[in-house]
Amino acid sequence: MKIYKNRIKSLCEWMQKQKIDAVVIEDTEGRQTKNLRYLSGMDSDALLIVFSNSETVLVAWDVIMAEKTAFADKIISYGDFNRNFCKAVKQICSAKLTEGTIEFSSSTPYVLYNELEKELYPFTIKCRAEGVDEYLLNLRAVKDEVEIEIYKEAGLLTNKLINTIEAAFIDGSIKTEIDAAMLIESEGRKLGAEGTSFETLAAGAGRSWGIHCIPAYSSDNIGTVLQGQAGGLSIIDCGLKFKGYATDITMTICRGSLSDKQEQMVELTKKAHNLAAEKASHKNICANELATAVDKFFEETGYIMPHSLGHGIGLDVHEAPSIKSGTPFKKTILPGMIFTIEPGLYDKDAGGVRLENDYLMTESGAVPITASKIIYLP
Amino acid sequence: MKIYKNRIKSLCEWMQKQKIDAVVIEDTEGRQTKNLRYLSGMDSDALLIVFSNSETVLVAWDVIMAEKTAFADKIISYGDFNRNFCKAVKQICSAKLTEGTIEFSSSTPYVLYNELEKELYPFTIKCRAEGVDEYLLNLRAVKDEVEIEIYKEAGLLTNKLINTIEAAFIDGSIKTEIDAAMLIESEGRKLGAEGTSFETLAAGAGRSWGIHCIPAYSSDNIGTVLQGQAGGLSIIDCGLKFKGYATDITMTICRGSLSDKQEQMVELTKKAHNLAAEKASHKNICANELATAVDKFFEETGYIMPHSLGHGIGLDVHEAPSIKSGTPFKKTILPGMIFTIEPGLYDKDAGGVRLENDYLMTESGAVPITASKIIYLP
Repeated sequence: MKIYKNRIKSLCEWMQKQKIDAVVIEDTEGRQTKNLRYLSGMDSDALLIVFSNSETVLVAWDVIMAEKTAFADKIISYGDFNRNFCKAVKQICSAKLTEGTIEFSSSTPYVLYNELEKELYPFTIKCRAEGVDEYLLNLRAVKDEVEIEIYKEAGLLTNKLINTIEAAFIDGSIKTEIDAAMLIESEGRKLGAEGTSFETLAAGAGRSWGIHCIPAYSSDNIGTVLQGQAGGLSIIDCGLKFKGYATDITMTICRGSLSDKQEQMVELTKKAHNLAAEKASHKNICANELATAVDKFFEETGYIMPHSLGHGIGLDVHEAPSIKSGTPFKKTILPGMIFTIEPGLYDKDAGGVRLENDYLMTESGAVPITASKIIYLP
Repeated sequence: MKIYKNRIKSLCEWMQKQKIDAVVIEDTEGRQTKNLRYLSGMDSDALLIVFSNSETVLVAWDVIMAEKTAFADKIISYGDFNRNFCKAVKQICSAKLTEGTIEFSSSTPYVLYNELEKELYPFTIKCRAEGVDEYLLNLRAVKDEVEIEIYKEAGLLTNKLINTIEAAFIDGSIKTEIDAAMLIESEGRKLGAEGTSFETLAAGAGRSWGIHCIPAYSSDNIGTVLQGQAGGLSIIDCGLKFKGYATDITMTICRGSLSDKQEQMVELTKKAHNLAAEKASHKNICANELATAVDKFFEETGYIMPHSLGHGIGLDVHEAPSIKSGTPFKKTILPGMIFTIEPGLYDKDAGGVRLENDYLMTESGAVPITASKIIYLP
């Protein structure tokens, strides 16, 4: 519980400086936010109101779940407000305050904002690009000691999983994309994870040209050689959820004898991964700088990487910091940040290759917490 | 391709009446919309611009995926706009139009709306609660012939899966929640589904009090009797995705001899399910009316159902029509609508029970397309 109290305390200090009297955080279908879980322990489907004196009210769709898992001064059923967002906010805020400023998420739809502004009069409504979401994004990006300990464990579990996947390719027990995904789902949970952190992407050599294959996995063969070819590239992109926190890794499986182009794509991806890991191992590196170095490296060889180099991980599988080029901002990767490095190249005929690992930035530079790899099979 | 052309044509007729020159639809992380797939065939991670003369431009993160799967007059890489939403919209619209009205999704965040309004001058920006989203919601709610055929097949697959799950409980091969979920993932795909339509919820008797258990499944036993009890209730809520379309069913597994309370909850849920199915089997039933009948039925027995009676299904697992009470609107469930009926009761000690099936409304009333059930095990 202490961890939630500390987080609420930090938020309230910021609220007081910003002259915000209440902050409303809602996780609902179509507008999910892990800020809810970060501040209350409640995983999803609830509305949290934080007052600047640090009082909290949680309005939950599943009130039994809230009572069993969440931390808040008061827990109310969403049914009491006929599941109406405006009504719940108005009643709860009016019971505490006669006037003041209420801040909502920057993702609040324009249409809902207009409704809130009308319904919540005489309260002042705030919804800012650089408001409470931005504050919580930055707070969440730098992991505290409890979170770093969780990640150390999560990294170990993920590495066990990587070894299990490799062994299953070597002994031939993974034949189809389904086999790979099922192994990951069941082994991950047996290892103690809550589950996978996102739907496993398992793309055999016929589909690895997609950055994120659709469907996520199928009955296609994986790690095998396609008819009429000497070799091929398959991709597995997966992660575990441990105590709410996501890991995220990608392995590439090279089967048979690769074409010159495939060979080159694999080598370049490995070099890009190692280049990025080496650069990140020094302290005070900027996210932008790191990503630009890799983009340049690929461009000099005539390839283009069609996605970002990496991203922060945490309660969300994608969170701050964003490790991408082309942004005008110089943002240093701070000690406590946990992020992926995941260079990849894709070709509609040759297929795709990606290598992804997770890193923790420390006072002296980034250290890997996962050990994903490129596997070669005969 | 014809199906997409027809849908674009319907949308453009509406746009002309509404004096809208371009509609912008984006599926992106945190703001997903199946309107993209509905109108273009592209599953996700892209921006579709539809002009009122029916020209379409698709801006895709994964341009290889777009070229292989999507239908649009022009396909462009998001990279060409440095993955900047405003920039992409501005350049594409300015190339076709010198002025006019551009409509965005009603879920466009307030903060983004302000940016668009500034950046897209001299275009007029529209973002309405009852605008293009509402139009597409209603269009998508009534399934066309192609979609109904898909659902008939999807229903058959789902029924095979239900029988397989039942058999695996009877022969004892499902022991843990993981076993149940793994069976569903692998059998579903073997049957020809693209995958599950959402993360399977498998809650053994110790966790079935949660409407949506967290984690979705664990290494807990399922369908077994808890220590110190004579019997228990377990819930499995799952669905298949077939050609993009979701089914959604829930089974309850009653193991051992139930307490009077558990027995009563199961009987009431079955009665509520049958009451709703019977009411829906008549044409011209209102969604609100159907849900209110079930809520009243439960309330008269002293129970409260903490969630809606049901919801439409389609490319999204939750879409229009919403089958819930407490709304002031009388919305008839129209022929072609496909929806769930899923009454449930939950108690923190006795556990939970839910029975969910999918229905197609026809000219003469709703017919079931799935046959989920409550299973009794010794």
